[in-house]
Amino acid sequence: MNDITQVILCGGSGTRLWPRSRATKPKPFLPLVGDNTLFEATLLRCGPGDGFADPVIVTGTAHLDHVEAQLGGRGAQIVVEPAAKNTAAAIALAAHRLDPQAIMLVCPSDHHIGDCAAFVSAAHAAADLAREGWFVSFGIEAASPETGFGYLRRGEAIGTQGFRTAQFVEKPDAVRAAAFVASGDYAWNGGIFAFRAGDFLRELAEHRPALAQAVAAAVGSGFSDGARFHPDAAAFAAIESESVDYAVMENTARAAMVPADMAWSDIGSWEALHAARARDGDGNAVSGPAELVDCRNVLVETDGPRVSVIGLEDVIVVVNGGEVLVTSAAGAQKVGKLYGAANQ
Amino acid sequence: MNDITQVILCGGSGTRLWPRSRATKPKPFLPLVGDNTLFEATLLRCGPGDGFADPVIVTGTAHLDHVEAQLGGRGAQIVVEPAAKNTAAAIALAAHRLDPQAIMLVCPSDHHIGDCAAFVSAAHAAADLAREGWFVSFGIEAASPETGFGYLRRGEAIGTQGFRTAQFVEKPDAVRAAAFVASGDYAWNGGIFAFRAGDFLRELAEHRPALAQAVAAAVGSGFSDGARFHPDAAAFAAIESESVDYAVMENTARAAMVPADMAWSDIGSWEALHAARARDGDGNAVSGPAELVDCRNVLVETDGPRVSVIGLEDVIVVVNGGEVLVTSAAGAQKVGKLYGAANQ
Repeated sequence: MNDITQVILCGGSGTRLWPRSRATKPKPFLPLVGDNTLFEATLLRCGPGDGFADPVIVTGTAHLDHVEAQLGGRGAQIVVEPAAKNTAAAIALAAHRLDPQAIMLVCPSDHHIGDCAAFVSAAHAAADLAREGWFVSFGIEAASPETGFGYLRRGEAIGTQGFRTAQFVEKPDAVRAAAFVASGDYAWNGGIFAFRAGDFLRELAEHRPALAQAVAAAVGSGFSDGARFHPDAAAFAAIESESVDYAVMENTARAAMVPADMAWSDIGSWEALHAARARDGDGNAVSGPAELVDCRNVLVETDGPRVSVIGLEDVIVVVNGGEVLVTSAAGAQKVGKLYGAANQ
Repeated sequence: MNDITQVILCGGSGTRLWPRSRATKPKPFLPLVGDNTLFEATLLRCGPGDGFADPVIVTGTAHLDHVEAQLGGRGAQIVVEPAAKNTAAAIALAAHRLDPQAIMLVCPSDHHIGDCAAFVSAAHAAADLAREGWFVSFGIEAASPETGFGYLRRGEAIGTQGFRTAQFVEKPDAVRAAAFVASGDYAWNGGIFAFRAGDFLRELAEHRPALAQAVAAAVGSGFSDGARFHPDAAAFAAIESESVDYAVMENTARAAMVPADMAWSDIGSWEALHAARARDGDGNAVSGPAELVDCRNVLVETDGPRVSVIGLEDVIVVVNGGEVLVTSAAGAQKVGKLYGAANQ
């Protein structure tokens, strides 16, 4: 049995956790939940003891130092993207660096998973389906009617561990999201996938031939430097930016899903981060020097200055690097649009 | 006609405007509303052109430097209290430094008055009554049912400018305060008084003989140093701490009041300061670099770090000297009890 190769995607800059997350040190490389950074935790949950091969990490030059500093001695191939071209191209680059029979387990580097055993179990179920030629999405237990995620509709069962994916649904409005959760037939699409490397490249070539050829050209003209592989920048510049969902998952005839109930969060906002953190009996979570009086569901995170909060509920206060953010939980969705976040 | 001598009381440290107000530089000496500090504004509203003599300022050693730095060239006697002994003793010290016929206009140094012309008009009305031997309180138009102030109940008219004070009422509960405002017979007691120096000392000796004797002894053993007068510390240490309301105003048979509708605020909390500040159409007031999104009635004051606020209403954010305060408007009453405020 061939091991599973985790493919970790470290792209994007992210502004939604500003001012903690900065362009120079974005979300994956920060210890946002617990002691490990999200990237470190992503690596650690696919250890060799659980049947995982050394990973392939796809990242940009801007984050290469962070990646290498946080590998913790783990062997890894690192594919250095000359530019960010979304997930279809990033996964294709990784696929070219692997044996066609290798099982790729594609993982974002900036999510939190509270139940690692459930993740590993789902990963093996997904890998079993991938070995039969399926393109597997993790169908994450939809715990609430989120409007910020895409959804997967469950189809007929495939053996005992998975289902066909009957439909990929774009981010729904609140009414549809509530109906999805009530029906029990839908799961969140968390961007975690499994398939064979050769299968992926074959279907990419079928559905997006120009993109597939451009990636192949960039790899063909690329060069290695130790564990790093550098695709050719000029060839890569021509590549179309497209998500793997659009380019492959929604087009393949062999889309499958495995259920995953694993305390997952994309940590997509300060509100989501607050939910993932350990909280006291009043729902408050504090990191750094702070005093809270008459507060409920308040998150305080400060890198030094003392924060004193009185009489607030569902509020987030972040002090970092000389910036102070105070937002309602609902308003956290707008953090990325703040002048400070958008003009780092 | 003898001029009116303003007696400015600069005591107390104050923690309710922490972290802006600090023990080392408290509220009177900060430009909290407009460009002048509250102390400077207090001085300026009793200028020589309006019939006011040089003032007497009563302060402690801790604030002497601030007082002298903010006199702006104005001549003044400064009485340096060896210890804070509340308003009865402070006013008695000033009275000893004046001619018995002098009209004292006692003013706190940490209030804001938006309508200076109305203040000056009320001051002259009060002085006219004081010249007839009345002990006059400013009866400040009760604009709302505040529970944090004492109230004065209006009695029979004295001439055209004032009234007897029928009753001094301690801080009422919310129900009584609402009834006071609805009745129209009550005014706030803002701690602004007028009386003759000799009258004050005579009635103090009558109602609080020990206190009066102790002040007289401290003055008798005191010494001058330029414009400063230093009462004897040992004699002063024996003085009882009592407010002028308890010691004299509530005991005299000649208590009077003049109405004063002058956009007054004691700036007794961040909420009160917010109300006194110029605000935009959404009720927001900002001082320092800040971005407000979807906010109403939010006050932001920062001494440097940028403050970004999203989706909040009736919230106060203060960043000063490495401290960050975030409070609901209602919670502003509790600022003084915060660890940071109480342990400066």
